[in-house]
Amino acid sequence: MHSVDLSEAEEFFRLHAAENPHAADPGERFSQALIEFGRRGSFSHTIEELEFGAKVAWRNANRCIGRLYWRSLVVRDRRHVRDADGVAAECVEHLRIATNAGRVRAVITLFAPDQPGRPAPRLRNTQLVRYAGYRGLRSVVGDPAQADFTRWVESLGWTGKGTDFDVLPLAVETPDEGVRLFDIPDDAVLEVELTHPELPWFADLELRWHAVPAISSMPLRIGGVTYPTAPFNGWYLGTEIGSRNLVDADRYDKMTTVGQLLGLDVDDDRSLWKDRVLVEVNRAVLHSFDRAGVKIADHHQESSMFMAFADKERRAGRVPHAEWSWVVPPMSSSALPVYHQYYDESVQLPGFLPSAGWTP
Amino acid sequence: MHSVDLSEAEEFFRLHAAENPHAADPGERFSQALIEFGRRGSFSHTIEELEFGAKVAWRNANRCIGRLYWRSLVVRDRRHVRDADGVAAECVEHLRIATNAGRVRAVITLFAPDQPGRPAPRLRNTQLVRYAGYRGLRSVVGDPAQADFTRWVESLGWTGKGTDFDVLPLAVETPDEGVRLFDIPDDAVLEVELTHPELPWFADLELRWHAVPAISSMPLRIGGVTYPTAPFNGWYLGTEIGSRNLVDADRYDKMTTVGQLLGLDVDDDRSLWKDRVLVEVNRAVLHSFDRAGVKIADHHQESSMFMAFADKERRAGRVPHAEWSWVVPPMSSSALPVYHQYYDESVQLPGFLPSAGWTP
Ligand code: HEM
Ligand code: HEM
Repeated sequence: MHSVDLSEAEEFFRLHAAENPHAADPGERFSQALIEFGRRGSFSHTIEELEFGAKVAWRNANRCIGRLYWRSLVVRDRRHVRDADGVAAECVEHLRIATNAGRVRAVITLFAPDQPGRPAPRLRNTQLVRYAGYRGLRSVVGDPAQADFTRWVESLGWTGKGTDFDVLPLAVETPDEGVRLFDIPDDAVLEVELTHPELPWFADLELRWHAVPAISSMPLRIGGVTYPTAPFNGWYLGTEIGSRNLVDADRYDKMTTVGQLLGLDVDDDRSLWKDRVLVEVNRAVLHSFDRAGVKIADHHQESSMFMAFADKERRAGRVPHAEWSWVVPPMSSSALPVYHQYYDESVQLPGFLPSAGWTP
Repeated sequence: MHSVDLSEAEEFFRLHAAENPHAADPGERFSQALIEFGRRGSFSHTIEELEFGAKVAWRNANRCIGRLYWRSLVVRDRRHVRDADGVAAECVEHLRIATNAGRVRAVITLFAPDQPGRPAPRLRNTQLVRYAGYRGLRSVVGDPAQADFTRWVESLGWTGKGTDFDVLPLAVETPDEGVRLFDIPDDAVLEVELTHPELPWFADLELRWHAVPAISSMPLRIGGVTYPTAPFNGWYLGTEIGSRNLVDADRYDKMTTVGQLLGLDVDDDRSLWKDRVLVEVNRAVLHSFDRAGVKIADHHQESSMFMAFADKERRAGRVPHAEWSWVVPPMSSSALPVYHQYYDESVQLPGFLPSAGWTP
């Protein structure tokens, strides 16, 4: 349970008023919130406050390279939805709105905060869309990062097809119903099959990835109130798929397979075969998403956009905050402008809090 | 002028004794140093202390990925050399010992510390070997990073040939002689001409680089005493040349030239042409050094060695310290184990201090 912090609330009302000329006087607004808090041990944000708070939380996401368009976030106020069916249906609707037939939009859906004596519904998934991982004797089918979660939903009665790319069910927990699982309808999960612009054999690897990265495990803190269930998404940065999800040794681990298919000497790291594989897998990802008409960023463009964000922040009288090791993409990094600056790494609110951490 | 710090001295004697069973009792050693300090306002390290201090300074170099072999550092005690001729000759000798016909060795040469009323000799170069940069109307011939320094040595009477790879003179400053310039003999600077394992046209670019990276601008702090002139070198990590020196926009800036020669679409960043160029330039660097029999590390191997260093530190009861943004190489970084850990970033002594900063 997260408790309400009144001094944070006061500060947030001041920020809201400072950046929004038509907002209520922050002193008056705070008095009002205090009265509500005295009555029921919490207070409600207005929809304007909620929208502004969620957008600024994105602006303050130090690990996010994609913040230039923080004002364009679509904020869905679903604080009234408290039952598992409702939460699951709203998550599916979130995916449909975000997917937008490939023209991916940045969206956040806010469910209720915890209230005294009334815990809010929670999502147990780390992202709305993730692929199951099935641990075998010697290897894993699917995404090893999801093997624990997969075993857990299996223990609750879920059965996957056993392919490398089975979309996991939503696991919604409410005080009344416990944990309930919901399959996401196929037509709510847009996926892209991966091909390479020049290498026909790449398609035979039968790799694919989903269009919408939607983190569902980070609580959102606005003005002293925590929203534990607040799934949000942007569009993908190519390297997330092409350098990490498909290639990391503890994920799909395709480095050696692709290296061998490229005819490279995979026993000699000094030949830079791994570097070559990364280039080709990332080219395949960008090419395939482009061909399918699904929005995806590349690290060159996104890095320039981040510099534009940093400039805009400075012009607005703010210092750009960022965690260097997160905003710098994991390939060809010194060729990107984002590499060549230092940033203020301190954390600001409103903001997203670290994931609660998944324990079954 | 750097002042002596006695509490640092005391701590250093304790460290020296803790890690060297045959060292003097640290309390007695400190009393002795105090007496010497009382007499002349400073004290001298023994040669053992100097060796140990320099090695630990390397072990403590948070930005250095190459620390596994910190015990093997060759320490040259040249504290008695105070005239410009002597300093220049010892720097040249340093280069010869370090170069070792291509089997590059890690070497440090320690000149005198500042003493009350008697400033030590100083090197004004940032590295012992750097290429001149000549600023023209629209572009720079050579290394733009050296354009200010080049203009300054020109104002002191030096003239370069005007090629892209003219080795700059040593600029030695002593209280008696002011600044004096010394050309480094050609045969003390081993260089490698760059060719590519498969692309014959690469040789036509007439790129080359020198074998020994020897930083000469970072003061060394051991046990409360600062050695302002303490050039040190390791061998190169390939990416320093292949991703940075030859490719950075404010260095030799060869990205577009190589991209065009590779036949890539240099107007479309999303084609990942830059990523491809980096792979090929880095392959050329490693290939050429290997062919010339000149020791150079690649980022895969060096990253594994850094992990071995971190393990060894842990086994010795120490926490591995590092600056993540420096030890993680600037290409294919998520494919390297060093990427996937956090490190303690705090600074420890003995250590190298930030460069004084170059002002003519
Ligand atoms: C619009 C396109 C977007 C792009 C291209 C983008 C890109 C990224 C990338 C590449 C990361 C690092 C992910 C990783 O390495 O695991 C990241 C992290 C993050 N982003 Fe964004 N992002 C976008 C939208 C958003 C939105 C809409 C929000 C919130 C409203 C957001 C909040 C965050 C947060 C909180 C993190 C840190 C996640 C963590 O700690 O695991 N981003 N983003
Ligand atoms: C033996 C092979 C070595 C390798 C492969 C190596 C590698 C590196 C690399 C790649 C960097 C980053 C350079 C940059 O990005 O500008 C670095 C920095 C550094 N290294 Fe090493 N190093 C080696 C030996 C040494 C030695 C012998 C010392 C000192 C005795 C040393 C001390 C340092 C220091 C102080 C820095 C930081 C430089 C700065 O702040 O500009 N290294 N090293």
